Amino acid sequence: MILDHVCIIGAGSSGIAAAKILHERGIPFDCFEKGSGIGGNWRYMNDNGMSSAYKSLHINSSKGQMAYSDFPMPEDYPQYANHSQVLQYFESYVDHFGFRDKITFKTEVSRVAPVGDGTYDVTIKNANGERTQRYGAVIVANGHHWYPNMPKFPGEFTGKTMHTHDYKTPEGMDDKNVLVVGVGNSACDIACETSRVANQTYLSTRRSAYVLPKYILGRTLDSYLTPLFFALPLPLRRLYGQILLYLARGAQSAYGFPNPTHKFLSEHPTISSELLNFVGYGRVKIKPNIKELAGERVRFEDGTELPIDIIIYGTGYKIAFPFFDKDFINPEDNEFPLYKRVVHLEHPNLYFIGLLQPIGAIMPLAEWQSKWIAEVIAGNVSLPSKAVMLRHIEKERRLMQKQYVNSKRHTMQVDFCPYIDEIQKEIKKGRRHNNSKFKISFGKRKALQNSKLINPDFPRISEI
Amino acid sequence: MILDHVCIIGAGSSGIAAAKILHERGIPFDCFEKGSGIGGNWRYMNDNGMSSAYKSLHINSSKGQMAYSDFPMPEDYPQYANHSQVLQYFESYVDHFGFRDKITFKTEVSRVAPVGDGTYDVTIKNANGERTQRYGAVIVANGHHWYPNMPKFPGEFTGKTMHTHDYKTPEGMDDKNVLVVGVGNSACDIACETSRVANQTYLSTRRSAYVLPKYILGRTLDSYLTPLFFALPLPLRRLYGQILLYLARGAQSAYGFPNPTHKFLSEHPTISSELLNFVGYGRVKIKPNIKELAGERVRFEDGTELPIDIIIYGTGYKIAFPFFDKDFINPEDNEFPLYKRVVHLEHPNLYFIGLLQPIGAIMPLAEWQSKWIAEVIAGNVSLPSKAVMLRHIEKERRLMQKQYVNSKRHTMQVDFCPYIDEIQKEIKKGRRHNNSKFKISFGKRKALQNSKLINPDFPRISEI
Repeated sequence: MILDHVCIIGAGSSGIAAAKILHERGIPFDCFEKGSGIGGNWRYMNDNGMSSAYKSLHINSSKGQMAYSDFPMPEDYPQYANHSQVLQYFESYVDHFGFRDKITFKTEVSRVAPVGDGTYDVTIKNANGERTQRYGAVIVANGHHWYPNMPKFPGEFTGKTMHTHDYKTPEGMDDKNVLVVGVGNSACDIACETSRVANQTYLSTRRSAYVLPKYILGRTLDSYLTPLFFALPLPLRRLYGQILLYLARGAQSAYGFPNPTHKFLSEHPTISSELLNFVGYGRVKIKPNIKELAGERVRFEDGTELPIDIIIYGTGYKIAFPFFDKDFINPEDNEFPLYKRVVHLEHPNLYFIGLLQPIGAIMPLAEWQSKWIAEVIAGNVSLPSKAVMLRHIEKERRLMQKQYVNSKRHTMQVDFCPYIDEIQKEIKKGRRHNNSKFKISFGKRKALQNSKLINPDFPRISEI
Repeated sequence: MILDHVCIIGAGSSGIAAAKILHERGIPFDCFEKGSGIGGNWRYMNDNGMSSAYKSLHINSSKGQMAYSDFPMPEDYPQYANHSQVLQYFESYVDHFGFRDKITFKTEVSRVAPVGDGTYDVTIKNANGERTQRYGAVIVANGHHWYPNMPKFPGEFTGKTMHTHDYKTPEGMDDKNVLVVGVGNSACDIACETSRVANQTYLSTRRSAYVLPKYILGRTLDSYLTPLFFALPLPLRRLYGQILLYLARGAQSAYGFPNPTHKFLSEHPTISSELLNFVGYGRVKIKPNIKELAGERVRFEDGTELPIDIIIYGTGYKIAFPFFDKDFINPEDNEFPLYKRVVHLEHPNLYFIGLLQPIGAIMPLAEWQSKWIAEVIAGNVSLPSKAVMLRHIEKERRLMQKQYVNSKRHTMQVDFCPYIDEIQKEIKKGRRHNNSKFKISFGKRKALQNSKLINPDFPRISEI
């Protein structure tokens, strides 16, 4: 790394995890956040326009699982925190580790361009204008739940159309016919919520999904995601999961919600403790995929047709990097291969944190990614050769294709515990220095500051 | 019975069950309904002022269990119908069996007074004034979920106070601190619903309750209430029920909802598929019993104190008969002993339909009660002697005291299947006539019309 300064893009849950690790290890960095506060997706009504949180949102990960490794969530928090509690936790995290001054708010990264020597020219934009600075490394943590994926159906719909990204409350949906498209977590939450006020809520799904409750046998869902569970061969994992599911709720078809045709764990499951019940009560009615939009009506693939007032597309998000030139990096159809979901093969010193989709919480994974990358940046850990990384990506892709149905949703899928193991192994494997040296520098700001690679006297930012 | 005309008070689910049976058997009757339509509790915003239905109300009985025996709920109904579907079902029932013209709407029974010879003078009141008519029998079906039981706590509360009876929607509760008192079905529904908009909802409970989901292993809760279940000795029933409950949701204390100190099935359980989850999410916080009201604050028995904006008392209902003089019939503390929960011991030809609290639906029980009483009125079935009935009531009371905790809630408790058995046995036992005669008259209008006791030429109403 030529310049020792790192640029972190975004101060959401992944950005602050990266910032905390760099801060702790004494690696100089700037973190830029478009909005006026931290929290990203978890800042309801975030003025960066990128939060998809709705008013009633609760996290699907239990507080034990979602917390960063060295900062437990408060004792008095419920098992599943709501968005404002999650945000408050992040605020405390930043304050506790004391790196808020390293985050520049209301400042958008408008362009990241490779200089060619492994450094990057980062253009930032705020009320004071625009400025370009050169960084030795860039950590992209701009999230992947903010750029709505809008499906295209034949015909035109004359009612109200929105994406779950823009849904906040069911206000204005009283006595309407609401059609939610998709069966992801938000789609199901929103279908259940609107059904309380709507005349009727419909949920349209192509493939259906396995619906997991937030609790099984009184324990949080993610408490079953143990290393032992992930150590089981996939068929056994599927069997065990389905037995647990059956105990918790019987067959989902018994409620009137179709069983998916794909195998369990071959698609990202949906977490909802309400949906099956609401289908059983007739509050939410299930429809197949949309065939055609026809004015105030919607036609479905089974030939049925319904009068609809509002369509809410719960059709997920696209990976998007508005600050990269299209000929530099342009992920099409969510295809964005990275080594261990972090390292870009073509562009050195460019890292992506939190750009993954686990069954479980992203935060601890983002933290492990950051620990790894901090060691790489500090020069303590080296990356494998490009050829090795490429082979690994190919192997991963084949494994994913074997486990998951072919869908844009599954380009970022990782298994929680195995992924942490992998990153830990990656750190060990990549150590340049001997074991004792590594142990000293790892996590010790002072040791790092004294190391050759991190030079505190180096000009902080090289102005262009 | 001196006069052959019967007066039915109320056209809710019990009143129409009684009316249908009398109509079918050719027993002349008048049914008086205070409101402008049938349905009672299940007519949302009923203009008789007696409905406790809230906008989001779904029945806790599955459509198979709640339906009258000869009129299934529509195929396209969900497993758990909402209040408007339930009402629509009742409307169809009345139309299908064709007795709507026997119901006089917007007409209140203001007084029922015993004449002394086993007949009753019934005073009805409507827009045209007041009138008193004499009847040979009176069937009281005025419901027992309409007269709010308001607890008295020391001190005064200056915020808004209401009873669940008056709750319709969470409108106006946005960002408020809401305290729901009680853990019955409505209290829990309303706690969950208000928690979606409130700043914080609290639920205060003295003894806690067993919280049953609407589904266990994908089957409706009441599908487990089979004759076999009720045939088990109470300890085995408790064990079996608790195993099922554990499978469905683990220990309720795992969610942060206290385990009751009383035994399972020793108190009317609460049915809610949402509550435990909502407690787990921290949306609903559990508090002990209120100790004292203090202006804008509420103090609890554990010494804690909270600022509260709205108190919603989900503290149940009292048995009330506004049309009886206090010195005639005045049930104190819900103590109202009746033979088989139907027959008044002191006052002949006075019957109570639907005045019971089963685990399961009331409608089929009200129908069986009506079948029995129709036979009694028709003279086909006789009642036991007063001494026998009294002994039975005493025996029942002892059994109830053994099974249930001492509470005003459990004066009307019956077990679903055993109760139907009992009524069926009662009909068999009480037959005056031989088996073949009974079979002909039972359910056959013509046979009844030809019988000595039902004289179609008898003056319909004897004007006073």
